[in-house]
Amino acid sequence: MKPKGKKRIIGYMKRIYLDNASTTRISKTALDAMTPYFQTLWANPSGVHSSSAAARARYEDSRKKVAGIIGCGDDEIIFTSSGSEANCLAVKGAARANADRGRHIISSSAEHKSVMLALEELCSEGFEVTYIDPGKDGITDAEKVRAAIRDDTTLVCVMYANNETGAVQPVKEISRAAHAGGALFFTDAVQAAGALPLDASLIGADMLSLSGHKINAPKGIGALYVKNGTRLRPLINGSQERGLRGGTENAAFAASFAAALCEARDRISDTERVAALRDMLYRRIKADVPDVVINGSPTSRLPGILNLTFKGVQNDGLLHLLDIAGIEASAVSACEANAREPSHVLLSMGLSAEEANSSVRFSLCRDNTEEEIRRAAETVSDIIKKLRSAL
Amino acid sequence: MKPKGKKRIIGYMKRIYLDNASTTRISKTALDAMTPYFQTLWANPSGVHSSSAAARARYEDSRKKVAGIIGCGDDEIIFTSSGSEANCLAVKGAARANADRGRHIISSSAEHKSVMLALEELCSEGFEVTYIDPGKDGITDAEKVRAAIRDDTTLVCVMYANNETGAVQPVKEISRAAHAGGALFFTDAVQAAGALPLDASLIGADMLSLSGHKINAPKGIGALYVKNGTRLRPLINGSQERGLRGGTENAAFAASFAAALCEARDRISDTERVAALRDMLYRRIKADVPDVVINGSPTSRLPGILNLTFKGVQNDGLLHLLDIAGIEASAVSACEANAREPSHVLLSMGLSAEEANSSVRFSLCRDNTEEEIRRAAETVSDIIKKLRSAL
Repeated sequence: MKPKGKKRIIGYMKRIYLDNASTTRISKTALDAMTPYFQTLWANPSGVHSSSAAARARYEDSRKKVAGIIGCGDDEIIFTSSGSEANCLAVKGAARANADRGRHIISSSAEHKSVMLALEELCSEGFEVTYIDPGKDGITDAEKVRAAIRDDTTLVCVMYANNETGAVQPVKEISRAAHAGGALFFTDAVQAAGALPLDASLIGADMLSLSGHKINAPKGIGALYVKNGTRLRPLINGSQERGLRGGTENAAFAASFAAALCEARDRISDTERVAALRDMLYRRIKADVPDVVINGSPTSRLPGILNLTFKGVQNDGLLHLLDIAGIEASAVSACEANAREPSHVLLSMGLSAEEANSSVRFSLCRDNTEEEIRRAAETVSDIIKKLRSAL
Repeated sequence: MKPKGKKRIIGYMKRIYLDNASTTRISKTALDAMTPYFQTLWANPSGVHSSSAAARARYEDSRKKVAGIIGCGDDEIIFTSSGSEANCLAVKGAARANADRGRHIISSSAEHKSVMLALEELCSEGFEVTYIDPGKDGITDAEKVRAAIRDDTTLVCVMYANNETGAVQPVKEISRAAHAGGALFFTDAVQAAGALPLDASLIGADMLSLSGHKINAPKGIGALYVKNGTRLRPLINGSQERGLRGGTENAAFAASFAAALCEARDRISDTERVAALRDMLYRRIKADVPDVVINGSPTSRLPGILNLTFKGVQNDGLLHLLDIAGIEASAVSACEANAREPSHVLLSMGLSAEEANSSVRFSLCRDNTEEEIRRAAETVSDIIKKLRSAL
């Protein structure tokens, strides 16, 4: 039934959220999973009484679910407060714990900001890092990793899928190169989760990081898989998480995260529809405006990410106009959005600063509709034309 | 109206929670404060679009509220995922960032596990720590701190109030001693929050840590006050929190934490009633069973904590029987409860291992009632008598 009274001429237009690689809306499943912990199961999981035992049992159930997705033992999962924490724990924790074996690390120059900064910090402590530039397609060549291995290499860090371009890395090959050289292999799977298989032994990862808020769980929870026997030094000291991560356990978010991971696995077929929407977005924009280039491999890419360079267009102006028109997207990762510098990921792929500053990331999720994508494509094209005509 | 049918002979007896120093129930205020972030304000506070701007504004409001309680600038508050994280960030972050000035640290031997372990880690990196034993009353003498200061002392860490005994430390005097010696002063105020004034400049703290779940906010949020100009190296690298703490901002829990802090301040007069209940608990037990000793200063003590040694009684058996009788308490901190060793806090005060293992911490909150305390006192006394008669 239509509401009575005057018809509003300018109706409310639902905003279109295309920034899912930055963060996602919490799903009903993830929300429902955390609720009991706020009102009944709120005891300290490390306490000695019955309420604590109940909270502990549920917390360990959450860990078991995450371990099930990773295909590992329960004691190989450490809950953290974020993907960034998991990344830093892996990179700094493993490098420092294995410093007696060597101080050389190999990484790509397109890693997440938290990894890049952790590596910088290690350099200030006397570690040496060899950064491998990805190719023009955003993909790091496993052969280059193999060639960079030295006797004192203890760690290879290459992400599973890039957060800005979606480029999926040849992690199995890189893992083999690392292991052949006697080094550990850590992969940041934060952006890959929900789209790619996460079985650690298939990947060949000794450590693998995850984040809740990229897969419809809340911000404030992540996890690190650490293969048994891997030496690691904690960032946050304490007795929790087998001494590798102190702090009273956030059982609420652990439950939410575990539920969201299982939901993503159960809905893995949605990724095909997401990829189709992403391709539709690209085709429609491309058909309407010239000089549009996809960044990152068009074939080895996450289903939800479309990173485009619009020649001659400043991305900050474009994003601002898109925002006014109700479309939310981003340029560089939100984890470095304050810096206002050209994306280090795009620069590492050989783009010029000008090209990097003309690039925008649209990132989709299973909740996006065809109608949204049609409207987004139209709006993007209109704005690009307007901006270019003003040049 | 009474339910029909057979009357159950054994009725449901509400459990009595006296483990509030371990963790607290989330208050309605704290719960209501976080809810909007899960369903509407869920954007990444560091994104570039309008939804992000809205989340950012609310997140900064939360920071402003915390800063208001600490009496500091907004840019002097760093949100963390826990008190343990805040403690480790302060201790390791400041020690490492100031290592060019010296590598000597002074602390008490009764600090929280996260601080003790962080100091141990620093020792393995070439730092030297002077630990000061508190007196029999659990209080660290500021004069001993003054006497321990050396030219290369960069940091003094003494907690505001002890988490096991509630003993309140002379932090102003210790701060003066630290500053007179050219050292920074960090105080772990996790257990003090909600009961003692938190104004950093009154205390004289350069850094001060807080935790949400000790003051009726959820587990998974904390904060570190860092006075402007204090050098600090991050644990979690990233661009968030001015480069001092990476990871996508948990705006939901920050809001909940800020609300809980304000609520605790507004209800500060409740602490008198809590202290009266604590004293009633002690008086009633003492009147019923002999050989009961209070651990920690009876005068300079948090209102909610009562740590008692019951001569000849094993605390694990006592806690188990209390739990069966529906009363939840603890011995050592939950942060080291898995270790099953005598409390390092009580040992540092000169108790024997046997005495430490005969000690139990009852910790109260504003929700406890006289009826609960009466029942708890009776139950404790009965169990002590039973255990002692079995000797």
